Amino acid sequence: MSAEAPPPYSTATARVLRLPEGAEVDDRLAVEEPLELRIEGKPVAVTMRTPGHDEELALGFALSEGLHPVAARLPEDLAANTIELDAPGFDPERLQRSFYTTSSCGVCGKGALEAVAVEAPPVESSLVVSAALVARLPDRLREAQAAFASTGGLHATGLFTAAGELVCAREDVGRHNAMDKVVGRAFLDGLLPLSDHVLCVSGRLSFELVQKAAVAGCPVVVAVGSPSSLAVELATDRGITLCGFVREGRVNVYTRTERVSA
Amino acid sequence: MSAEAPPPYSTATARVLRLPEGAEVDDRLAVEEPLELRIEGKPVAVTMRTPGHDEELALGFALSEGLHPVAARLPEDLAANTIELDAPGFDPERLQRSFYTTSSCGVCGKGALEAVAVEAPPVESSLVVSAALVARLPDRLREAQAAFASTGGLHATGLFTAAGELVCAREDVGRHNAMDKVVGRAFLDGLLPLSDHVLCVSGRLSFELVQKAAVAGCPVVVAVGSPSSLAVELATDRGITLCGFVREGRVNVYTRTERVSA
Repeated sequence: MSAEAPPPYSTATARVLRLPEGAEVDDRLAVEEPLELRIEGKPVAVTMRTPGHDEELALGFALSEGLHPVAARLPEDLAANTIELDAPGFDPERLQRSFYTTSSCGVCGKGALEAVAVEAPPVESSLVVSAALVARLPDRLREAQAAFASTGGLHATGLFTAAGELVCAREDVGRHNAMDKVVGRAFLDGLLPLSDHVLCVSGRLSFELVQKAAVAGCPVVVAVGSPSSLAVELATDRGITLCGFVREGRVNVYTRTERVSA
Repeated sequence: MSAEAPPPYSTATARVLRLPEGAEVDDRLAVEEPLELRIEGKPVAVTMRTPGHDEELALGFALSEGLHPVAARLPEDLAANTIELDAPGFDPERLQRSFYTTSSCGVCGKGALEAVAVEAPPVESSLVVSAALVARLPDRLREAQAAFASTGGLHATGLFTAAGELVCAREDVGRHNAMDKVVGRAFLDGLLPLSDHVLCVSGRLSFELVQKAAVAGCPVVVAVGSPSSLAVELATDRGITLCGFVREGRVNVYTRTERVSA
């Protein structure tokens, strides 16, 4: 056993608009796809993962859950995104963890997006924001993060107006929770759909975060970090503008670039 | 609605040993606790979250799942870590997301740790490593991360020998997946329990990551970032040494400090 290079399919290439320069360049994204874990042919869990070393993932997952796995077997069609686990004495009632949970999740034979996306209409909005405004949002979010400053351990999501004014910021150890709190606040205040707003997150952009922005009807999502491949795919499908790698005045726009002016 | 300070219970204080100086100081941690979401009195999900704004969290979560929530109600005893959601027309079959899933998760009335920890024996190991060795591991992990370097979007976990030699490194968009892959690899190679090994992660240390290390029997877990409150609590309970904020030759040791020599 030795340190290995990551499998070639752990990254994907996306076309990105770099602002304020206005250059179109290729960017590498981390691949995110669902993996359906099956025991005795029955789907028991779906995890959003980067493809590669799937047998190890299934075995490690099962061990963490207190199961007693003996082997994991990949299907002949790797694109099926499923894996079969041999785990004698498995009791579904004992399974406790973070994953997609329906017993009929049915990843196999579907595209990754089709398999996991919650139904939501495309985001309708004629909002246009400047790259300069987008570039300032992460700093404004950090200013609102008193707890983050003191622990370094909290993710944050901020809701901003089209003028860049902070409406609400929430923190959490889970980045999806910080986004849920902001969307919940907006719901309570009658702000949904967020057609004239911008959401900004402190870290990377997973599929799940874009899913939440889509359901909230938000046209522009900004991240300090990079988006995953499936985050970009979902944003394209739902008509959401994704801005990533927002640092030192620069912005990468991955999708629906017409909403960000140089 | 305006930007608010985070609730006071979003951070906790822990005693930490700073090496190589050897100073004992107070450190602030992000609080991580389970929240059980109930619909019509029935537990439907548990999420690991930072307490505060729980109504917003429950509503935002429900909206993301395509539910139609009308209100969320906190129990009289906030320490119960439960919340009741009114969501007319709710169909449990439709619920798809990342959370703890048993229908009888039973957070209420239990301590946070008791509610979510998977049973595992305490980690037994007489391993002692030097602070200098611990401080070098994040760089060694980064060197093994070819894909991370190109996308900036992948988490990593590395398994090291007591001499600091890299045994195996794995990357993933999900930090728990990277850890699962490493533990799965170790299982396949007959290395479990990892009594003489050190695990190193590229980001922060959640409860979930420490849980996986505990099940794998690993006595020392190292992170570039900070641990959550529940990560520290679980490490204490299972006898695991947690090292965090490992940067520029410095190491914070949160638990079982006797395993790290200055």
